[in-house]
Amino acid sequence: MSLIVQKFGGTLVADIGKIKNVAQKVIYERKRGNTVVVILSAMAGETDRLIALANSAAEVPEAREYDSLISTGEQVTVSLLAIVLNQLGYPAKSFLGFQIPLKTDNAHKKARIEHIDTQKIRKELKKGVIVVVAGFQGVDTDNNITTLGRGGSDTSAVALAAALRAKQCDIYSDVDGVYTTDPNICNKAKRLDKISYDEMLEMAITGAKVLQPRSVEMAKKFDVRVYVKSTFSNQGGTLVTKEDKDMEKEVVSGITYDRDQAKITVVHVPDKPGIAAALFSPLSGNNINVDMIIQNASLEGHTDLTFTVSKKDLMEAKKIVDATAKKIGAKNIEVDDQVAKISIIGVGMASHSGVAAKMFTSLANEGVNIMMISTSEIKISCVIQRKYTELAVSVLHDAFGLEKKK
Amino acid sequence: MSLIVQKFGGTLVADIGKIKNVAQKVIYERKRGNTVVVILSAMAGETDRLIALANSAAEVPEAREYDSLISTGEQVTVSLLAIVLNQLGYPAKSFLGFQIPLKTDNAHKKARIEHIDTQKIRKELKKGVIVVVAGFQGVDTDNNITTLGRGGSDTSAVALAAALRAKQCDIYSDVDGVYTTDPNICNKAKRLDKISYDEMLEMAITGAKVLQPRSVEMAKKFDVRVYVKSTFSNQGGTLVTKEDKDMEKEVVSGITYDRDQAKITVVHVPDKPGIAAALFSPLSGNNINVDMIIQNASLEGHTDLTFTVSKKDLMEAKKIVDATAKKIGAKNIEVDDQVAKISIIGVGMASHSGVAAKMFTSLANEGVNIMMISTSEIKISCVIQRKYTELAVSVLHDAFGLEKKK
Repeated sequence: MSLIVQKFGGTLVADIGKIKNVAQKVIYERKRGNTVVVILSAMAGETDRLIALANSAAEVPEAREYDSLISTGEQVTVSLLAIVLNQLGYPAKSFLGFQIPLKTDNAHKKARIEHIDTQKIRKELKKGVIVVVAGFQGVDTDNNITTLGRGGSDTSAVALAAALRAKQCDIYSDVDGVYTTDPNICNKAKRLDKISYDEMLEMAITGAKVLQPRSVEMAKKFDVRVYVKSTFSNQGGTLVTKEDKDMEKEVVSGITYDRDQAKITVVHVPDKPGIAAALFSPLSGNNINVDMIIQNASLEGHTDLTFTVSKKDLMEAKKIVDATAKKIGAKNIEVDDQVAKISIIGVGMASHSGVAAKMFTSLANEGVNIMMISTSEIKISCVIQRKYTELAVSVLHDAFGLEKKK
Repeated sequence: MSLIVQKFGGTLVADIGKIKNVAQKVIYERKRGNTVVVILSAMAGETDRLIALANSAAEVPEAREYDSLISTGEQVTVSLLAIVLNQLGYPAKSFLGFQIPLKTDNAHKKARIEHIDTQKIRKELKKGVIVVVAGFQGVDTDNNITTLGRGGSDTSAVALAAALRAKQCDIYSDVDGVYTTDPNICNKAKRLDKISYDEMLEMAITGAKVLQPRSVEMAKKFDVRVYVKSTFSNQGGTLVTKEDKDMEKEVVSGITYDRDQAKITVVHVPDKPGIAAALFSPLSGNNINVDMIIQNASLEGHTDLTFTVSKKDLMEAKKIVDATAKKIGAKNIEVDDQVAKISIIGVGMASHSGVAAKMFTSLANEGVNIMMISTSEIKISCVIQRKYTELAVSVLHDAFGLEKKK
């Protein structure tokens, strides 16, 4: 008898009919003799509805109240699943953040889990009760409700699996695993049987939507075996786990893209200490995340600085950077909102030479111009014109032979 | 500077626009120099929507989960009001049952308040924060969410007013006070300036929907001055308070009716000890509330037993009573689902004779037949044919001169 953590995403609990399907999936695992802890998201669309309510109540909704409001979505789904399971003869009990308690820091809207008390949950599990936990939420030390940020239910699931030392953590969504790239834009995409934590993390950060990056970090930290699965089939799925010998042979495991990118260039900046800080501090002060940053080599005491932000932040970022640019004596700023980022990810990259060259050549052969490049040990990202996104993904998928992966 | 408790019903927080109006009402009280605690219901219709969800999940939804589910309605409105107040520059903080904590027994769906810890609320009030409390909900000693039964937000408000020793408890709804009878069916109905706890309690029990009976009981017990008001006008309202000398002069203060009635008669029952228990125990065992019970004088060792139940319970009650009737040797049972109950209420009734006679005569003069009668010290109720409801209310309103009340 093993302890299994199952997490179901919003599209899988979108209505009562779907919640009843989830109940069957839980019961299936129970009948196999396993102890089950279930984590749920809110019904698909519900969190957006609640956010819209908050935004119609105030321009900048107070963060503590915002969290209390949007955490109700998960409270609804966990109660409903527990009702369904009890009706079917399987004792079940829902747990909200404060009932566990799942303690977080007090950074509302993006709280970090600090401690999970497993005593109450273990007591129920021992009695044979199916425990259904509201994802995405916790409480701080003052019992204020906090939320873990978008997609936070993945993190709740992995954290609970770690705290309960579960055998595995099954993440169910409407896709049946992690693919070499998005099957929606490349029909040669193949499902991966296995992927390492580091690769999965880079893929999640660079655009794969299948798992929240923080959940992958946490899985790595606590060595939680994560299965990405679909409820529609009992087979398949991708195991996210530690690097093993097989994996090392693979140079590139996956290709991701992110169309939500915009590029800002600050032209002809006097090249002296403190310039980068002067540019980027006001942005982070306004909660604008800067992704890639490139600084050209200095020429005659001046340089160009280029960076990318999320499309939705572009207008605000432009306003802030305009003001700073004047202060630091830059010539002007240029903006491009028609870009995308393409990334190739693979643990083998570190020990193989020529991967970057192959990427650049493949893109060049198709006439795709590379505007920015950024690399890590297991990832190379290029910013290109947005209209070439699908072409670039497909070309790189061929170039690195990903259709032969399994 | 006084402490005022304000409670707003579901129709007054039905959407963001209305919640913004409520904010103005709260700020108005704040600007007059008062300390304010606000209690809210769920948006009109939301509790019904959640109940429908629960009922589509299971025939008999598990009670603990049901409470956790339907308590989300108030969580949404209190966060939204706190967001609006903060945006307008008035620091506000929402409190859920577990955050106060407001402790109840563990009778889910109809829990009773056992203790309200006022420490946290007082701390916020001292800082000048407007405290916004979710009505209808509490937690038991195990931190399970409980709800107080339909209309429970009135009870939350009065209980908080009592615990905080508030100067008064204002109950805002879409009616501007307590009327001599329902203005919707009798255009001569007059708003009362004052009514005693006992009269208000009888009126609430016998059909007036303006306050939940339990909230009136609690107001009486802790001597809380309750004002029933409308947000649409700053004037008017009815004060529910202790009996005073003025009140004693009034023979009849109000007339109520309840159309949600059905009548069952068990015919020719052998008149021996234990018969009533045999009939009514199975009904209460199935959570069917019996309202009036009349047993005729025994004739030749047999009697007839008549009682009323809520219309919605009639089919189930009939099934249960049918079975019992056979066991105890009754001849047959008769059912009438076309009845209503008319009640006249007044503290002066106890010291005035002839009130009952006047009621019966007035109804007889209009050809309204009385099927059942039940009396208390300050109330007389008659069951009549439902089609005569409006006529009976209007006739009695005239007979007792209620249009002259103020």
